[in-house]
Amino acid sequence: MKREGRPGLIARDVDQAAKGSGIEEDLDLTLSTQRISIKSRRDKQVIDITDNVERAVASLGKKEGLCNVFVLHTTAGITTGEAIEGTDEDLMETLERIIPEIRFRHAHDPSHAPDHMISSILGPSLTVPIHNGKLILGTWQRVLLVECNGPRERDVAVTVVPA
Amino acid sequence: MKREGRPGLIARDVDQAAKGSGIEEDLDLTLSTQRISIKSRRDKQVIDITDNVERAVASLGKKEGLCNVFVLHTTAGITTGEAIEGTDEDLMETLERIIPEIRFRHAHDPSHAPDHMISSILGPSLTVPIHNGKLILGTWQRVLLVECNGPRERDVAVTVVPA
Amino acid sequence: MKREGRPGLIARDVDQAAKGSGIEEDLDLTLSTQRISIKSRRDKQVIDITDNVERAVASLGKKEGLCNVFVLHTTAGITTGEAIEGTDEDLMETLERIIPEIRFRHAHDPSHAPDHMISSILGPSLTVPIHNGKLILGTWQRVLLVECNGPRERDVAVTVVPA
Repeated sequence: MKREGRPGLIARDVDQAAKGSGIEEDLDLTLSTQRISIKSRRDKQVIDITDNVERAVASLGKKEGLCNVFVLHTTAGITTGEAIEGTDEDLMETLERIIPEIRFRHAHDPSHAPDHMISSILGPSLTVPIHNGKLILGTWQRVLLVECNGPRERDVAVTVVPA
Repeated sequence: MKREGRPGLIARDVDQAAKGSGIEEDLDLTLSTQRISIKSRRDKQVIDITDNVERAVASLGKKEGLCNVFVLHTTAGITTGEAIEGTDEDLMETLERIIPEIRFRHAHDPSHAPDHMISSILGPSLTVPIHNGKLILGTWQRVLLVECNGPRERDVAVTVVPA
Repeated sequence: MKREGRPGLIARDVDQAAKGSGIEEDLDLTLSTQRISIKSRRDKQVIDITDNVERAVASLGKKEGLCNVFVLHTTAGITTGEAIEGTDEDLMETLERIIPEIRFRHAHDPSHAPDHMISSILGPSLTVPIHNGKLILGTWQRVLLVECNGPRERDVAVTVVPA
């Protein structure tokens, strides 16, 4: 299990990622949303991004409320789980095996249609309570980014709303 | 892929949908929650409701924070994904195929027990950051309502909380 | 279908559950987050925790906004669905059957690796709009805790952020 990625705002990249929403050059996500960029190393990979999210929460400055973690992609997903003892690899293999072998219609490249399926089934959003500026998580619970079509850089938006 | 549905608040219908919560006639969701009603056309259908959600967010007036999209049903779900090139149909077939053929106990109509299963596995809630009154989404990422027991009208609550 | 659990804050237990987050003895979740403790009775069990969540929301005092329900564990998950007519048992059997029989790597006990998989696929967080201090849910829609490794006590954090 590798822990990768670095927090930080790169306005131009966010513009790219958010293009579909009509968000333009004047983008300034620093007030309530912090973009983090996560670099995956393999085609399929479960990445523990808890520390990246924690740093983004710290930089946003709010201490109590909810932290939303949102993946800006259609071939990646987000969830929580253990990130030790092979549980990350178990999760990746399980997700790949769950997707049935159907005749995918997805036009530009049917071979990665299953990646879209895993992404939609896991979902792109996770909302975690924060207390004292820290995520409230269980002892072994980590925030996991599920990469289905790497290696590449992934944009994740971390937003905190106050209680 | 059809894009259907219209935003708008119909207090009486919301009362119906929310009856289980004890929400009564004085219901007024306009301040922080906007109900949108989505009409599905087929039994199984993945519907792109991004534009409906965007309009609801605009009508709520808040510019920065989190937008929650919540489906008030037990045979429909919500997620994100592509809505082009057949990905929507791939998702629907994948979800149907994932549900195993067990001896369902569901009493009043076992034949649509799998619809409840898809609904619970996808989940009813999606939380997306907003910036400048727009959803922050990836380039190809759309908000998808998954209809498992149509055609019918579906109630979706769109709520914005400020950052 | 049993309805179990009681709302209430036990600071020491929350410390235990939240140890991984560095949350220490001065923990006081009463302002925006209320911990509820749910006792499962069986190894695998879908538990309707709607009433527990409703009581936590009432005790937090906020009337309009979003309620986040977050499970502090890696072998339990959260979703919504019907909790009558066997739908709860259908969901549990469906989830168990969905997980493929792979050679799990999970070191300390491979036999419960599938429990982690169900937990990650369902996800730990659910965000529901509230109006007038009540959850906005569909007529038959209930908040369901999915226990995959019981019987035991489960910590669930209920947080309300204002609209």
